Amino acid sequence: MTESRNICVVITARPSYSRVKTVLEAIRDHSQLQLQLVVAASALLDRYGSAVNYIEKDGFDIAAKVFNVLEGENLTAAAKTTGIGILELSTVFDNLKPDIVVTVADRFETMATAISAAYMNIPLAHIQGGEVTGNIDEKVRHSITKLADYHFVASENARSRVIALGEEPDSVFNTGCPSIDLAKRVTNGNAIEFDPYEKYGGVGAKPDLSQGYLVVMQHPVTTEYRHSRLHIEETLEAIKMLDMPTLWFWPNVDAGADGTSAGIRAFREKHLMPNVHFFKNMESDDFLILLDHAIGLIGNSSVGIRECAFMGVPVINIGSRQNKRDRGHNVIDVDYSREAIVKAVQTVFSQGKSPVSDVYGGGNAGSDIADLLKKLPLKFHKTITY
Amino acid sequence: MTESRNICVVITARPSYSRVKTVLEAIRDHSQLQLQLVVAASALLDRYGSAVNYIEKDGFDIAAKVFNVLEGENLTAAAKTTGIGILELSTVFDNLKPDIVVTVADRFETMATAISAAYMNIPLAHIQGGEVTGNIDEKVRHSITKLADYHFVASENARSRVIALGEEPDSVFNTGCPSIDLAKRVTNGNAIEFDPYEKYGGVGAKPDLSQGYLVVMQHPVTTEYRHSRLHIEETLEAIKMLDMPTLWFWPNVDAGADGTSAGIRAFREKHLMPNVHFFKNMESDDFLILLDHAIGLIGNSSVGIRECAFMGVPVINIGSRQNKRDRGHNVIDVDYSREAIVKAVQTVFSQGKSPVSDVYGGGNAGSDIADLLKKLPLKFHKTITY
Amino acid sequence: MTESRNICVVITARPSYSRVKTVLEAIRDHSQLQLQLVVAASALLDRYGSAVNYIEKDGFDIAAKVFNVLEGENLTAAAKTTGIGILELSTVFDNLKPDIVVTVADRFETMATAISAAYMNIPLAHIQGGEVTGNIDEKVRHSITKLADYHFVASENARSRVIALGEEPDSVFNTGCPSIDLAKRVTNGNAIEFDPYEKYGGVGAKPDLSQGYLVVMQHPVTTEYRHSRLHIEETLEAIKMLDMPTLWFWPNVDAGADGTSAGIRAFREKHLMPNVHFFKNMESDDFLILLDHAIGLIGNSSVGIRECAFMGVPVINIGSRQNKRDRGHNVIDVDYSREAIVKAVQTVFSQGKSPVSDVYGGGNAGSDIADLLKKLPLKFHKTITY
Amino acid sequence: MTESRNICVVITARPSYSRVKTVLEAIRDHSQLQLQLVVAASALLDRYGSAVNYIEKDGFDIAAKVFNVLEGENLTAAAKTTGIGILELSTVFDNLKPDIVVTVADRFETMATAISAAYMNIPLAHIQGGEVTGNIDEKVRHSITKLADYHFVASENARSRVIALGEEPDSVFNTGCPSIDLAKRVTNGNAIEFDPYEKYGGVGAKPDLSQGYLVVMQHPVTTEYRHSRLHIEETLEAIKMLDMPTLWFWPNVDAGADGTSAGIRAFREKHLMPNVHFFKNMESDDFLILLDHAIGLIGNSSVGIRECAFMGVPVINIGSRQNKRDRGHNVIDVDYSREAIVKAVQTVFSQGKSPVSDVYGGGNAGSDIADLLKKLPLKFHKTITY
Repeated sequence: MTESRNICVVITARPSYSRVKTVLEAIRDHSQLQLQLVVAASALLDRYGSAVNYIEKDGFDIAAKVFNVLEGENLTAAAKTTGIGILELSTVFDNLKPDIVVTVADRFETMATAISAAYMNIPLAHIQGGEVTGNIDEKVRHSITKLADYHFVASENARSRVIALGEEPDSVFNTGCPSIDLAKRVTNGNAIEFDPYEKYGGVGAKPDLSQGYLVVMQHPVTTEYRHSRLHIEETLEAIKMLDMPTLWFWPNVDAGADGTSAGIRAFREKHLMPNVHFFKNMESDDFLILLDHAIGLIGNSSVGIRECAFMGVPVINIGSRQNKRDRGHNVIDVDYSREAIVKAVQTVFSQGKSPVSDVYGGGNAGSDIADLLKKLPLKFHKTITY
Repeated sequence: MTESRNICVVITARPSYSRVKTVLEAIRDHSQLQLQLVVAASALLDRYGSAVNYIEKDGFDIAAKVFNVLEGENLTAAAKTTGIGILELSTVFDNLKPDIVVTVADRFETMATAISAAYMNIPLAHIQGGEVTGNIDEKVRHSITKLADYHFVASENARSRVIALGEEPDSVFNTGCPSIDLAKRVTNGNAIEFDPYEKYGGVGAKPDLSQGYLVVMQHPVTTEYRHSRLHIEETLEAIKMLDMPTLWFWPNVDAGADGTSAGIRAFREKHLMPNVHFFKNMESDDFLILLDHAIGLIGNSSVGIRECAFMGVPVINIGSRQNKRDRGHNVIDVDYSREAIVKAVQTVFSQGKSPVSDVYGGGNAGSDIADLLKKLPLKFHKTITY
Repeated sequence: MTESRNICVVITARPSYSRVKTVLEAIRDHSQLQLQLVVAASALLDRYGSAVNYIEKDGFDIAAKVFNVLEGENLTAAAKTTGIGILELSTVFDNLKPDIVVTVADRFETMATAISAAYMNIPLAHIQGGEVTGNIDEKVRHSITKLADYHFVASENARSRVIALGEEPDSVFNTGCPSIDLAKRVTNGNAIEFDPYEKYGGVGAKPDLSQGYLVVMQHPVTTEYRHSRLHIEETLEAIKMLDMPTLWFWPNVDAGADGTSAGIRAFREKHLMPNVHFFKNMESDDFLILLDHAIGLIGNSSVGIRECAFMGVPVINIGSRQNKRDRGHNVIDVDYSREAIVKAVQTVFSQGKSPVSDVYGGGNAGSDIADLLKKLPLKFHKTITY
Repeated sequence: MTESRNICVVITARPSYSRVKTVLEAIRDHSQLQLQLVVAASALLDRYGSAVNYIEKDGFDIAAKVFNVLEGENLTAAAKTTGIGILELSTVFDNLKPDIVVTVADRFETMATAISAAYMNIPLAHIQGGEVTGNIDEKVRHSITKLADYHFVASENARSRVIALGEEPDSVFNTGCPSIDLAKRVTNGNAIEFDPYEKYGGVGAKPDLSQGYLVVMQHPVTTEYRHSRLHIEETLEAIKMLDMPTLWFWPNVDAGADGTSAGIRAFREKHLMPNVHFFKNMESDDFLILLDHAIGLIGNSSVGIRECAFMGVPVINIGSRQNKRDRGHNVIDVDYSREAIVKAVQTVFSQGKSPVSDVYGGGNAGSDIADLLKKLPLKFHKTITY
């Protein structure tokens, strides 16, 4: 008797896809929801890991592909990419006529989704508002909160913050982070049953992983554009000094990508890295299993803060990127310093796994969010609560 | 010894220009500031009163004109107008290299200014954040607050709200509203020394103003698109019933402009309005002098809430557009109802001028804001305070 | 056995719709063609006669609406409108996957259709290439010829010209102009059976048409932007001097629209025009019937050159807009001069109807074009013939 | 006494820059011309050789940089890149107010320059019209001819063709190709005085060049998108079979870039190429000197047709890309076939240098074009000549 709802989710980058995959599944499998999946921006591009390939492989139908990345890797191009995103997404929404649009996290181009939906009077749901990082993402994240009608947040602190921002408490739901759903599902005592070198190619050495290994994933930090190269060199030097088996994952795009990528390339041309393998991308399930068995994760990825909290994997978190996110019991924060990184790895190595934490949820976020998307009253009109 | 700063102010609509004119003057006249004035969107268009003509007549140099209004007067076009605005303004900022960008108020297209500046790491100042209206403007206004680095607000309540939104208290300044500066300057006991019909043309009757007159200014309300026509018809009927000398000002653009404009046109074709004159636009000084001598203002313009509070002009405020803005002692709120409007006018008529109020400032906002734009540390990096 | 083809026709303006209406009907009614009708640019806008309303009323399904007119009515806005058109139409073609795209005539924004199709390797058909006018349209028209794969031209001279431009003779077809199909159908001895004032509204006097009347339709000429107003004033003065029953049709949009429109409005405010009625738009059938019974047509519309040749309606053709188009026996060319216009009307008045001519075809263009769209081999690769 | 003219040249790709470098110099050094150099599209991007770096190194001031490449490397993205180009370039022209805009050759995105100038009534000069290739470039090239007001062509055949296209003969000038100016200057008996491996990096082997070497440069062909990979593999196999010292230059961007680039990368991973070095880019002077001393050039670059004709360097020209361009005495045309390529190299190897030819000019194009840009009457209004 109740009508089905069209739920349009816009995915703009590889990490966002991994993060909300269980939400997409739950929407697709919900008898009263129609998933309208839009893949946009760097999620479509080879250079950034072609999330679209994984999405298709995972069996999702794609309702629209939106190419909106303006080449240039400078800040002006980031702004223009957002402008083009609005031009394109508004057409897509016009065609798909969604009942609710869902936008994920806080990358700069997600603003295009939020503005298009808000300006077209389509109810907007935001996954992962209310977090604190202290970088440009934060302007975007909280700005989107003020455009959104529903908020599916990942922790109690995040919920409090969204409410403090003047949102109606009954529009804010601590569902936990959907990425934890995935971590729960894939790391449930599973061993590594694939050869990552064979399955994912990549370049560099092929160290033996059976005696333990490190994982590295370090992204550039937008507002410190010029420093990206110096930052990554500290990590590269630390890994060189540690000389342990290491799996290094290439950064995804950001305005500073060139500094980071160029730093890695230049270092590899100058130095032997006989214990390091570089991957451009990996299916998130396999990545999580590798993480689950790692000695620790080095870098500034949010995976270290979120999934690793739930899995109890030690993390050496570098620099300011995850500055103020809630932490479980597994994180050692260090500065951009080869010595600090080396020292932290040694500590981690001596202590083994960390205690687990459900600070980011217990693994049911996907289905909880789908249920809410069906149940919540449709609205696109709100006011600040104070 | 201290260097001059480039201050880029983007004006996108006629009312925004009037509102910040004294700020523009104070920046232009400040020895250590360079004004970079950008005129964009409907401020350039004949149909919406060509604010650009007034700007040039007032002696301001225009650094760039940005045409970004996509025709269509529907919600998709509003989104796309914002996207085009980002494409264009990011080029302008690239060329002008401002030290600070200033965006005004909360019209949908001001978001383009905010995003372009924020994404390009240019410090962003926002004039008139923290207010409450309960319509689409509110999403835009508070969303811009979360992108802005400095906040020049118009009342104490607005200041409290911006701080509650997680902004650093020392980045939030209650300067009062610059429109009050203008009201103070022009209404200082001045008589009406011009013939509005002759000076501004327009259409309709030319009622005698010497025995008192009403002023009408009613804009469409974006999120109630389909109702714009019904709303305006109530006001038209009320004015017809009152049959008093009336000066009616044409609405500025919004997604619902057609409903309102079409309503007025249709009514005029059907009914004699022997006491009503319609203006498309007027210099704000002359408008304020006319307001100052009016029996009262009818409609939903923010002028009624702001300048009229300072001037003590009675206002019959219709509908939800100014829903939650702070009020002085001069406002009677009514619904979209011809009877309610008529009754309120009768009340006002019997009581005369209202007591004045400085709820929106005392008339020094322009120079206070210019001083702050010179003194404030340049920054584009912030975090939420909680 | 043969597969159906998707034929995507893009209509960007009211006159283009009238011109190809019988083509659209023939495609729609063809058993092996699917019509994908895209309505774009000024064809969607109230200000330019809302061709979209007529299209829907005529029973066509619209596959996509593309809003791409950037407000401004200056030359930069015309360029940008074309750029936005490409952004939008390429998305539309991506979604619709047409086998052939059809673009009509030579308005500036039709270039967006041509480029999008050509760059996406979609076979492109062009209706009405090969004509000569001597204005900006000519750059556009011949430029589109060089992007197009098939050419459906309206006269033998046009066919020769397209072939001279280096196109393969067997890709160029003189089908005649589809507007003649319509003229043939509706003017077949039909009387005026409607009251144009009642049916179409408009403003001004309501002259008695029973004793003969003039029709005026004058568009601005793009490359003479500043002169539009002077041009229209000559025509206005001539009509005032003639003081005959006159039906005046509002111009459609162009970069100079303001000069022309402003000229008409200003003249009407200053002068009584007791014999002139102004229409904003009219269904083309009714327009043709009115033309068929008129003493003559004054202005620079291509209707005077084309349909009126077939119908034998005398035309006073003003200025350079139709400069080098083929003519039947019905045209008197005059300069922008009130005296010349008046004199030509007097000549026409004394002579009555002109001899008919099939220089622009005999009335079967629609079905001939549809047949070709089915039969022609699909190709998007060509080379110049010399 | 005569006024200086602003000449705006838009460079969108590395090869276009090399081609017109002497024109840019001659404009810059002309006492009555002001060069306004705009660098756009792939000319700004690392991935395509950063022409901008060479431009700056050569001492040119850049008036504006225009980022308009939409990522995606598919045909839709090519269309959209052109649309964005129009949006951006029209703003640039608005700011720079050029007296003449110059567009170069026939890459898809040059259409954005042509449309923006033509629609803004700025006289447009086109360098290198009238050539024949038989691919998508041909649609673009001749389409631009029909938008351009002046034509600076590279051969007598090209001149005849442009005139046949209906252009006024006195607007068409056979100046020869400016690339010949450069070839004349740098190859005037000069030896190779630099180590290309050291100076330009690149990857692969470092074969000894003293006993002769081959040069390879093969671009994808847009309209044969899917075949790019197969095509390049034939060339790769041929080079492997020949096993001679070889310098391979990476292709510039096109809709098929992925096929070609991926083909090269995959081949390198599978096969040892002990005699082949790969360069991403090289200053054109050094490239020409290397070419001048090479046994021959293999691929489909226009350099083989043009500069090599003047220098007498044998060329094995593969496939359809240069299909119908005028040839000197130095070209052997082959299909995409490893055997044919190998056989042609053996022929060339046995014959040595080819006779020189001035079919593409004698080396004064730059200054001749600059003189014309000063002398020609300014006009933007034309008509077809027949």
